[in-house]
Amino acid sequence: MSFDSTIHAKAIDLTKLSYEMTAASGSGHPTSCASLAHITAVLMYQHMRWEPANPAHPCSDRLVLSEGHACPIVYAACADLGVKIGRTKDEWRDMTREDAMTLRDIDSVVEGHPNPIEGFPFFDAATGSLGQGLSVAAGLAASAKVDGIDKRIFCVIGDGEAREGQIWEAVDFVVDHWLTSVCPIFNCNVYAQSDKVSPQQTPEVLAAKLEAYGFTAIVVDGHNPTELQDALSRHAQDQHNPEAKPIGIVARTVKGWGSPSQQGDGHHGKPADGDDLQAALDELDKTGRDIGAAADQPLKIGMMASTKPDPVAPNAAMSFPQALAQFGMSKFLEDGKCATRRAYGIALRALGHANANVVALDADVKNSTFAQDFAFDDALAERYFECRIAEQNMFSVAAGLSAGGKTPFCSTFAKFVARGYDQIEMAINSGANFKIVGSHAGISLAADGPSQMSLPDVAWFRSFGTAGRHDGQPLMYVLQPSDAYQAYALTLSMADHDGPVYMRTLRPNVEFLYNESHRFELGGHEVLAEGRDLLIVASGYMVHEANKALDILDEEGVSPTLVDLYSLPFDEEAILDLANQNNGMVLTLEDNYGGGFGSAVADAVALSGDGFTVQQLHVRRLPKSGRTPDDLMRYCGLHADDIARVAMGMLELTPA
Amino acid sequence: MSFDSTIHAKAIDLTKLSYEMTAASGSGHPTSCASLAHITAVLMYQHMRWEPANPAHPCSDRLVLSEGHACPIVYAACADLGVKIGRTKDEWRDMTREDAMTLRDIDSVVEGHPNPIEGFPFFDAATGSLGQGLSVAAGLAASAKVDGIDKRIFCVIGDGEAREGQIWEAVDFVVDHWLTSVCPIFNCNVYAQSDKVSPQQTPEVLAAKLEAYGFTAIVVDGHNPTELQDALSRHAQDQHNPEAKPIGIVARTVKGWGSPSQQGDGHHGKPADGDDLQAALDELDKTGRDIGAAADQPLKIGMMASTKPDPVAPNAAMSFPQALAQFGMSKFLEDGKCATRRAYGIALRALGHANANVVALDADVKNSTFAQDFAFDDALAERYFECRIAEQNMFSVAAGLSAGGKTPFCSTFAKFVARGYDQIEMAINSGANFKIVGSHAGISLAADGPSQMSLPDVAWFRSFGTAGRHDGQPLMYVLQPSDAYQAYALTLSMADHDGPVYMRTLRPNVEFLYNESHRFELGGHEVLAEGRDLLIVASGYMVHEANKALDILDEEGVSPTLVDLYSLPFDEEAILDLANQNNGMVLTLEDNYGGGFGSAVADAVALSGDGFTVQQLHVRRLPKSGRTPDDLMRYCGLHADDIARVAMGMLELTPA
Repeated sequence: MSFDSTIHAKAIDLTKLSYEMTAASGSGHPTSCASLAHITAVLMYQHMRWEPANPAHPCSDRLVLSEGHACPIVYAACADLGVKIGRTKDEWRDMTREDAMTLRDIDSVVEGHPNPIEGFPFFDAATGSLGQGLSVAAGLAASAKVDGIDKRIFCVIGDGEAREGQIWEAVDFVVDHWLTSVCPIFNCNVYAQSDKVSPQQTPEVLAAKLEAYGFTAIVVDGHNPTELQDALSRHAQDQHNPEAKPIGIVARTVKGWGSPSQQGDGHHGKPADGDDLQAALDELDKTGRDIGAAADQPLKIGMMASTKPDPVAPNAAMSFPQALAQFGMSKFLEDGKCATRRAYGIALRALGHANANVVALDADVKNSTFAQDFAFDDALAERYFECRIAEQNMFSVAAGLSAGGKTPFCSTFAKFVARGYDQIEMAINSGANFKIVGSHAGISLAADGPSQMSLPDVAWFRSFGTAGRHDGQPLMYVLQPSDAYQAYALTLSMADHDGPVYMRTLRPNVEFLYNESHRFELGGHEVLAEGRDLLIVASGYMVHEANKALDILDEEGVSPTLVDLYSLPFDEEAILDLANQNNGMVLTLEDNYGGGFGSAVADAVALSGDGFTVQQLHVRRLPKSGRTPDDLMRYCGLHADDIARVAMGMLELTPA
Repeated sequence: MSFDSTIHAKAIDLTKLSYEMTAASGSGHPTSCASLAHITAVLMYQHMRWEPANPAHPCSDRLVLSEGHACPIVYAACADLGVKIGRTKDEWRDMTREDAMTLRDIDSVVEGHPNPIEGFPFFDAATGSLGQGLSVAAGLAASAKVDGIDKRIFCVIGDGEAREGQIWEAVDFVVDHWLTSVCPIFNCNVYAQSDKVSPQQTPEVLAAKLEAYGFTAIVVDGHNPTELQDALSRHAQDQHNPEAKPIGIVARTVKGWGSPSQQGDGHHGKPADGDDLQAALDELDKTGRDIGAAADQPLKIGMMASTKPDPVAPNAAMSFPQALAQFGMSKFLEDGKCATRRAYGIALRALGHANANVVALDADVKNSTFAQDFAFDDALAERYFECRIAEQNMFSVAAGLSAGGKTPFCSTFAKFVARGYDQIEMAINSGANFKIVGSHAGISLAADGPSQMSLPDVAWFRSFGTAGRHDGQPLMYVLQPSDAYQAYALTLSMADHDGPVYMRTLRPNVEFLYNESHRFELGGHEVLAEGRDLLIVASGYMVHEANKALDILDEEGVSPTLVDLYSLPFDEEAILDLANQNNGMVLTLEDNYGGGFGSAVADAVALSGDGFTVQQLHVRRLPKSGRTPDDLMRYCGLHADDIARVAMGMLELTPA
């Protein structure tokens, strides 16, 4: 049994270092680490095919630690193996035991929860907000499938964590897309944070659930090296067998394994220190002696099975009119009208042809968002991932696809994007390069009512735009195109930018405002009318309402400037200059709740101290159903008549 | 078979009206309605115990239509039965067929998706964002359980919708809390919006999943009245039998039942009109003749089993020092320090004793949020609902508890509150009276890193605060207390307010700033230092950092005013007055991303046109782990030294 004894010895070493690291940091979860000691040792020292000197290699097997708080056990293995760490590849160095002891220090790459971008390339995505790892793993597997890379993705999930519905969305997704390279490993250590786990998350029930979802569940003793190795080998064998079901491993483990004084209730997230620490370490040594732990067999990390596919450089995408012609849709040009969501679909398809890295995801509304243009194109279909009605999973899958080198575009109704806000934030934190397109945003949706309208979304996404990444780029761009040319161009711009972008698209057909000669970019804006009396700032549907208001104001002898502010953040100086040229009077328009575009303008104005006035028109009451966008505009005081009236009021004029 | 023939006749009538309503509105989902025709007829005309003249009666059986887009079939039944409609009880009138034909009109109470607050009291909560209804149903059942009311809660869930992980969180919750009065009915009509449903959501797989989760699944023909009635009767019998498992019904149905021309792919959400409408109606008549539909047996709505419990008026809660004394925690007064999250737990417990309507929910972090103070009090324990690690379910359960007359307080880490943002918005739209307490907010959490820090939350919740309810109250209040007295008092204020409130609590122990004599209220603020040079606006942890900055500035001869702006929205005029008294110079502090408190101040200043200057200090980079709050404050430029430096810069002073 020398494999067992060697793994036992390794498990004990790694657990001891986990106790020491968390004691040094004064926080962390050593008992969770102990429950994962054997699983980590078997995976990282024997079973996984990877290279410590190149932990981010695209062909290596991956470990997604969904229960991110247990990361010190992985750090311990990385310190032992000298895995490369460092923020950039230029800075990579071999991780040491001393590095491990800097856990959670402000100057350390050894974060409290896994995150690649702070300098830990072994991990693919930030985890720690629970329930998201299996979706990330599925995204990594989907990426490998597209690229024809033979790699396996192991995902460790806590038993308490298995309560998150997203885990089961991910299980469904794995079966739908037959991503058998994913191997979920449920770590059933019985104790969650505040209590024992529910009877609904015992190994028996988790195994029954997995089977009901179409998996073969293998229940093992998570501290028995041979049982673990056998189950993992079964996964390796079955994954390419189309007759076999996907494999899921359910491991019975002990929280605080090896240290009886650290077991039972009340030990979650509480590092032992002082005498307690010494006792825990001594108990681990004793446990090792009791079970015959001994490093008496060399462990050998597996060799990668695939070589890296050649990168394919993207080509320039067609122009909008070219795409319309090629896809047989020139009728839109004849109509002179096209919804921005419609233009998104066309752009996504054109982009798919130009850029092999672009993949698309949608949550059963692809005929509304028009992601179907991509999905139904035979040349692109294998890069489309239908996520069904499960938005949380979609966004974390996108994080995985990004980690696999893809540029995922995710679409659903903007309202339902909110289902995945936490997942989106974790993907942002991971440094993921992903794009979100929320359709049917704002009140112009009308008939369906507020259960389908997105109203606080601009405020939320804009908040990320107020903070920057390590390279100085905003954490998020927000785009809201007002016509199809702009929507098309901005979709292409989204792909060019290496980072997260949120684009709001709208339901109604709207007239063209631009043509092929206009250039649009992240951070940009467009002056649509040059006046002198008042600056009107709008985007999306409200640009059209503003144009109607301009006609009314023109009859009153008022000459406003109209800016299509389609991006957040934006060029604040340019907007302040325009305000200055317009009496310092600014009227902002948006068909969502406040805290969005108008507030961004107010931030800039208030910082300037220039004494400009910013009046914001936004949705100030809970909307309801109405049969037309006009009904809603009037209901919410955003109709062209309202805009003109407010503008007149700001200028202290009365209608003629 | 006269029961069958009568239900068939009713099903056909209701379906025909659904076609006519959606044709009139020009949008809606008649084919989904048709799939539910028999289920609706059996429930609303026979099985449910309720009163059309009092559709919101707390003792009546409830129908939660989780697939809200199918609501016209329920509206059709309500029009036929003359169910009361109207925004307020004073305005209630019998619904007519003419009302039904106003579907989705801006002046109509007949919304595109269910919502009680627009005037449809038959419904308990807004649905339409999928996957939330079963949790709402569980909340209604939990409320009835607390009150000892014998009522059953039927929840209709679409097959495509059953992909949402939240459904399975709710199933787990029902089993954990043994809420057998809930009867989920899966409507398996095969077609989702953009495609057939996945093989993972067939009746067979859904039944297998239900069984794995601990339910007995009964698969029926959803257009067979007797089969439906038998399954529902089994639920009625088993629900009080502790030996029996919870019952779930899986109904095989036909999308577009009765009208072959409306069946198959491509008919989701597309009302028939003109000749197509007439054909669909004619086909329904023909189907009726073929199956012998005939209203030849009277249908009798069931009688309610319980009477309404007497309301219990709340008492005044104890003061903070009284509560500390009573709960044996006076050491906090001696220490002079207490975390705001700690004070929340104490207040929640005191509130629980004073107000029998208050219930508490938490997602396995009750020992961090301190909801455990409530959970572990024997007198309150039955009003505590442990939700485990499943936040989406928690917030929708709260919506159900509110609809059942309770005042739910939901807590988890503020970061994980984001898991339920869409559910929270739907609860807001429902007019729910619920409270959210997000702990460990902002960067003062430090060690755990950004996967546990809440950073864009203020922006999101504030956005709701910019819009109003029908009664003029903001859709949401945001609170961030800076000390334990304030956290205690604001928790009590949250219960007094009939509506949604979000409170951010913090991890670190902080010194007391207030005492028993201070009064705090929603919309309030507190002047902590009166100066003349500069107005500093802060809340929460940043008040303490600001106090340190005041000491530095004092040494420089600078005299700032410090306001603890603990509420959004707030009294804008009062803050503008203070700015005016301080040179028009305003410095806002917050330890989250932008778009939050500072932006709210900037909105007010920019609207005033007074020419004041607002500089915002907020988190402008992605945070990471650090061992102390001070580490993070320095990393993000929010340390007292930074504040003092920026304040000096605003006044164009250089340090002495």
